[in-house]
Amino acid sequence: MKDCFPTPPNNTSSGTNINTMKGASPLLVPFLLLALASSLVSAFDPSPLQDFCVAINEPKDGVFVNGKFCKDPKLVNANDFFKSGLNVPGDVSNHVGSNVTAVSVNELPGLNTLGVALVRIDYAPYGGLNPPHTHPHRTEILVVIEGTLYVGFVTSNADGNRLFAKTLNPGDVFVFPIGMIHFQLNIGKTPAVAFAGLSSQNFGVITIVDTIFGSDPLINPDVPTKAFQLDKNIVEDLQKKFSD
Amino acid sequence: MKDCFPTPPNNTSSGTNINTMKGASPLLVPFLLLALASSLVSAFDPSPLQDFCVAINEPKDGVFVNGKFCKDPKLVNANDFFKSGLNVPGDVSNHVGSNVTAVSVNELPGLNTLGVALVRIDYAPYGGLNPPHTHPHRTEILVVIEGTLYVGFVTSNADGNRLFAKTLNPGDVFVFPIGMIHFQLNIGKTPAVAFAGLSSQNFGVITIVDTIFGSDPLINPDVPTKAFQLDKNIVEDLQKKFSD
Amino acid sequence: MKDCFPTPPNNTSSGTNINTMKGASPLLVPFLLLALASSLVSAFDPSPLQDFCVAINEPKDGVFVNGKFCKDPKLVNANDFFKSGLNVPGDVSNHVGSNVTAVSVNELPGLNTLGVALVRIDYAPYGGLNPPHTHPHRTEILVVIEGTLYVGFVTSNADGNRLFAKTLNPGDVFVFPIGMIHFQLNIGKTPAVAFAGLSSQNFGVITIVDTIFGSDPLINPDVPTKAFQLDKNIVEDLQKKFSD
Amino acid sequence: MKDCFPTPPNNTSSGTNINTMKGASPLLVPFLLLALASSLVSAFDPSPLQDFCVAINEPKDGVFVNGKFCKDPKLVNANDFFKSGLNVPGDVSNHVGSNVTAVSVNELPGLNTLGVALVRIDYAPYGGLNPPHTHPHRTEILVVIEGTLYVGFVTSNADGNRLFAKTLNPGDVFVFPIGMIHFQLNIGKTPAVAFAGLSSQNFGVITIVDTIFGSDPLINPDVPTKAFQLDKNIVEDLQKKFSD
Amino acid sequence: MKDCFPTPPNNTSSGTNINTMKGASPLLVPFLLLALASSLVSAFDPSPLQDFCVAINEPKDGVFVNGKFCKDPKLVNANDFFKSGLNVPGDVSNHVGSNVTAVSVNELPGLNTLGVALVRIDYAPYGGLNPPHTHPHRTEILVVIEGTLYVGFVTSNADGNRLFAKTLNPGDVFVFPIGMIHFQLNIGKTPAVAFAGLSSQNFGVITIVDTIFGSDPLINPDVPTKAFQLDKNIVEDLQKKFSD
Amino acid sequence: MKDCFPTPPNNTSSGTNINTMKGASPLLVPFLLLALASSLVSAFDPSPLQDFCVAINEPKDGVFVNGKFCKDPKLVNANDFFKSGLNVPGDVSNHVGSNVTAVSVNELPGLNTLGVALVRIDYAPYGGLNPPHTHPHRTEILVVIEGTLYVGFVTSNADGNRLFAKTLNPGDVFVFPIGMIHFQLNIGKTPAVAFAGLSSQNFGVITIVDTIFGSDPLINPDVPTKAFQLDKNIVEDLQKKFSD
Repeated sequence: MKDCFPTPPNNTSSGTNINTMKGASPLLVPFLLLALASSLVSAFDPSPLQDFCVAINEPKDGVFVNGKFCKDPKLVNANDFFKSGLNVPGDVSNHVGSNVTAVSVNELPGLNTLGVALVRIDYAPYGGLNPPHTHPHRTEILVVIEGTLYVGFVTSNADGNRLFAKTLNPGDVFVFPIGMIHFQLNIGKTPAVAFAGLSSQNFGVITIVDTIFGSDPLINPDVPTKAFQLDKNIVEDLQKKFSD
Repeated sequence: MKDCFPTPPNNTSSGTNINTMKGASPLLVPFLLLALASSLVSAFDPSPLQDFCVAINEPKDGVFVNGKFCKDPKLVNANDFFKSGLNVPGDVSNHVGSNVTAVSVNELPGLNTLGVALVRIDYAPYGGLNPPHTHPHRTEILVVIEGTLYVGFVTSNADGNRLFAKTLNPGDVFVFPIGMIHFQLNIGKTPAVAFAGLSSQNFGVITIVDTIFGSDPLINPDVPTKAFQLDKNIVEDLQKKFSD
Repeated sequence: MKDCFPTPPNNTSSGTNINTMKGASPLLVPFLLLALASSLVSAFDPSPLQDFCVAINEPKDGVFVNGKFCKDPKLVNANDFFKSGLNVPGDVSNHVGSNVTAVSVNELPGLNTLGVALVRIDYAPYGGLNPPHTHPHRTEILVVIEGTLYVGFVTSNADGNRLFAKTLNPGDVFVFPIGMIHFQLNIGKTPAVAFAGLSSQNFGVITIVDTIFGSDPLINPDVPTKAFQLDKNIVEDLQKKFSD
Repeated sequence: MKDCFPTPPNNTSSGTNINTMKGASPLLVPFLLLALASSLVSAFDPSPLQDFCVAINEPKDGVFVNGKFCKDPKLVNANDFFKSGLNVPGDVSNHVGSNVTAVSVNELPGLNTLGVALVRIDYAPYGGLNPPHTHPHRTEILVVIEGTLYVGFVTSNADGNRLFAKTLNPGDVFVFPIGMIHFQLNIGKTPAVAFAGLSSQNFGVITIVDTIFGSDPLINPDVPTKAFQLDKNIVEDLQKKFSD
Repeated sequence: MKDCFPTPPNNTSSGTNINTMKGASPLLVPFLLLALASSLVSAFDPSPLQDFCVAINEPKDGVFVNGKFCKDPKLVNANDFFKSGLNVPGDVSNHVGSNVTAVSVNELPGLNTLGVALVRIDYAPYGGLNPPHTHPHRTEILVVIEGTLYVGFVTSNADGNRLFAKTLNPGDVFVFPIGMIHFQLNIGKTPAVAFAGLSSQNFGVITIVDTIFGSDPLINPDVPTKAFQLDKNIVEDLQKKFSD
Repeated sequence: MKDCFPTPPNNTSSGTNINTMKGASPLLVPFLLLALASSLVSAFDPSPLQDFCVAINEPKDGVFVNGKFCKDPKLVNANDFFKSGLNVPGDVSNHVGSNVTAVSVNELPGLNTLGVALVRIDYAPYGGLNPPHTHPHRTEILVVIEGTLYVGFVTSNADGNRLFAKTLNPGDVFVFPIGMIHFQLNIGKTPAVAFAGLSSQNFGVITIVDTIFGSDPLINPDVPTKAFQLDKNIVEDLQKKFSD
């Protein structure tokens, strides 16, 4: 099995990555450039109204629908339900030391309307971090394949912002309920690998730090300054760092 | 109309507040103590299977359901669909200078299973802020009644964390799509007031700063330190400030 | 605040109005010509499968979908989530003395797929009436801003057609559950104003009297004659009155 | 408020009938006493989370849920999915000359969570009428077995309250879309019989005339007087007739 | 009633049939050629976002959506909600001796987005069989009009594959819960006729024997050989029989 | 990683197994005794109305709901979202040579209302088979970790019962759309291991052969005899084999 899931070279450079696997939606790639390793799930999609509805790229006339248009069913074949490559470790040489390889409707068009997706997450040893993020409408169920992770999520204000955290070893499973802010940290000395099932066909990751300090254009700095009660200089430094 | 919506006294002390209106769910009150003024929406609840299903408090035997148990329909009366008090300004004497008065299923039990709620938001002059937050599964549509607000939301990673922001005056309406991190800032010299309709019967506010730096218990500081690329001392200061 | 919500001139002519705010869907305007002031809500729309799906007008080739086609997300900007004008009183110089100004997906395209909308309702003094109507699939939560309203809804046959009614003053909130026939009557001597949040992005108002007596073409008069146990002359008079 | 809601005189006239088939929910029977023959459909119930969830009567402690509690699955048998009697004509000796025999979750507990129901409708010759009514959230598909019916529905205000009507003979099928006000009239000289499939497990019939003129208590007569532009005496006569 | 539903001529040849009524979707006809008589239901479709969304055929450019595109509402008329012919017995001269005449969205375009459909099923005397099949996501409620049927469904593995079976006579109603494998067998000496309401606008019948032994192309015979623990010759005979 | 996922001893005896991991629902164990290894998915569950709703066992009074009752949220801790053991190979010493280890709401109560689950499937070398089965309402996305699988699903009658099949190697992903009959066969000389994400919190596996030939009680043999066009002796042999 070593051949299937080789340990990545020890690389400590910066820049998170989501590997979109050169899939059906190259359009999304530029948006995913760097800072955001994430679990990439989604849930409660509309029910299918036929056996399947394999996604096609948007037509050239600039007309879109909620979700995706479908391929002519007569032209569909087994490859529309297939994607290879989840045995290849993601490149964790980035500033957070983690990488998400997603198999969502963008990489596997047969997932359209079916409400489920899968990701592989790689973590560099000694602190590879999938930083705090949220998925607007999907739950994530994660299983550790290799390594040791410290994982957790925080509940909403009404529940007192409670932290539910746990250390996970191979074979351990953990659930991050829909919408909750969550994270995973490699606390071991070796690379870590996890797979996660997601309750939607889609992406929709919101990495907190990129959203607050790295949006395009930047939020008026008065907002994070007051919200975080930080010195304005620190806020402006953060904005510089996350908006290159 | 001045009597109905009097201008609050100019108060610049700290401590945000969500006014739960002494409603049906006193349990929620302690969690909402300070830092979180928010728009408090929700969406896509299950359809009702009868004319109405007025919520009752959880039975004493510690058994709960997804959503709420219902009152015996024969005992329901018009007051179950009624709540007064949205003419009373919320107390904005807190550290962010804003206050949310919610009318959700916790305050108005007749909303159960009906997928909609309403809030009033008050903002202190000169910078009252409803700080960056998200609602796991509801959209918010806001109308300004008084004052001038700078409002915005940031899209997800896949969309490039774009900021959509706008200055709003009385009668202006703005939408914060489900799950997006958003905020409102009073940029005028007078108090501001807004109402918002929400696409759910429920709360579910996640104020970013309280979640990341003020959870109970605290997240291992290595996580925000690495994610925000901040000095560890600053992170620990933030944790102290938001977890009292 | 007087400037934001000025009292309309006292006008006693006839003809209800729904102000569609010269929005994205001029097509709907002719249908809304007179008799129907209504609360205009909707609920339980399909979940969004992306951050947003801003509605565009139907393409010229006469092809439609359930809901709306979406704008190219790269072309979306903050104005797609914005609408001004809810500070302007609606014109109540019509036969029922009320006016609904709607902000639904037709006026605010950013609401598409988001399951919520907002309306402003104005009522003439001394009896302005939002006549009995129903919304096929949305709930309405109403807050009174000015004036005094007598409001109510009637449950279905299985529940005994019970009336739940209440007199509302400024700051009072009332819920009209999905599908129930309901109404509001200004019982004060001054104009009344209310806002309502709706659990859908869409219209879908069915004003009872226009449906039964003013359909196009008219229902065979034997049907309302037998159903209402009225003299056939009275039925034919009603049909004349409501089908001009 | 007594003036607004005069008590109607005791009235013992005749009335349509919904035959609830002496089923699982005797509680509903009193509400269904007379005036309401209807098509009794329903739609878009929550998905089942197990093979079946056979409804049981509400427990004695007055606690209810949205929908129904379920029977212990180990005690379920084939009779829970079975109901006899749809070959028996309903009694049409009432003021509208029609009768609905329903097989919904109240009569056939195995339908719980399954989103479908069935009714038989009988119509007296020479004018048996299933009077204008609506179902808050279900569609009805009707097939004529015997006789000749004039049927139709009216669309919402936004669509111009258009009437879609048709004369049906045996074997003809017609659809009444969710929420639309609709009716059926026997225009033949013989009894008529129809079956209808409904997109919900539930009732939820709103007969217009009973709702507007026969609610309990009565709506303030000013409301229907202004809405229908009728003489107040006629309104009060209607209220007397429909509220015995 | 004999006139409406005449007894079909006694015909004992083979080949099941689904009568798609020469409806809107001739494309589906070839797929339905022989072996599959079925109850043809569907459930839990997306809610409509307008009064109706009458289905149109797929546009010529090969672009499809989940469900169906809609006709321009201004061109819709009563015939879009109408279908005749359910009084005509289906041809049961096929190898299983049964026939399903469906009225789904393919035959009655007005059903689009409405979540309900209707079928007529005819069974030859002395053993006409609607063979074991399943519907991926719809429930079926069946009423017997003529004859005597032995009907049943089997629950899932987790429930112990229990059989719930019953003998039905005219007027008897039985429910086949969503997704369960079920069948009907005419155990009488006369033809039998049933109607069934279905909780979806759509088809989606999976006849077990055609799926396992008659797929195109055939499944590797090792799979059914091992699964059914049959002699490989028998499996290959079955594959020959069901894949002509 | 060898330690985490050791190769199981080569064992060619019979008796499939679903490993329910000694979880929260011992009740299900007896039903899962032998013949059914399956992918165990589920989809489109109701949305959560709170941060989480951790499942509890049914109360002793025999009252059930659709889905599960919830634990008092104040008593919930991180272990409610955690399950260990997916690194342990399932026992494939059964007649089909495969084993499903499920992590659904029954084993991991925190999954309740969240619409997703995870399974590990083990296959014996030289022909370990997860036999043809269906899931009434969930999609499955499978990734191969070790070995070589021949997998496929067959579409519904309306689509011509087309087979979509593929040979999968480590890192390959395949989708089995909701409701379709599907299978996996180990065509390699070594054990195979796969993980699968499922679009529901729940089970709901229907193994075809157990349903048709092994139900409790048995289906009248005339039904499979006619449906499969088999000699009645063969049918009775199959019934004996699958109903011990």
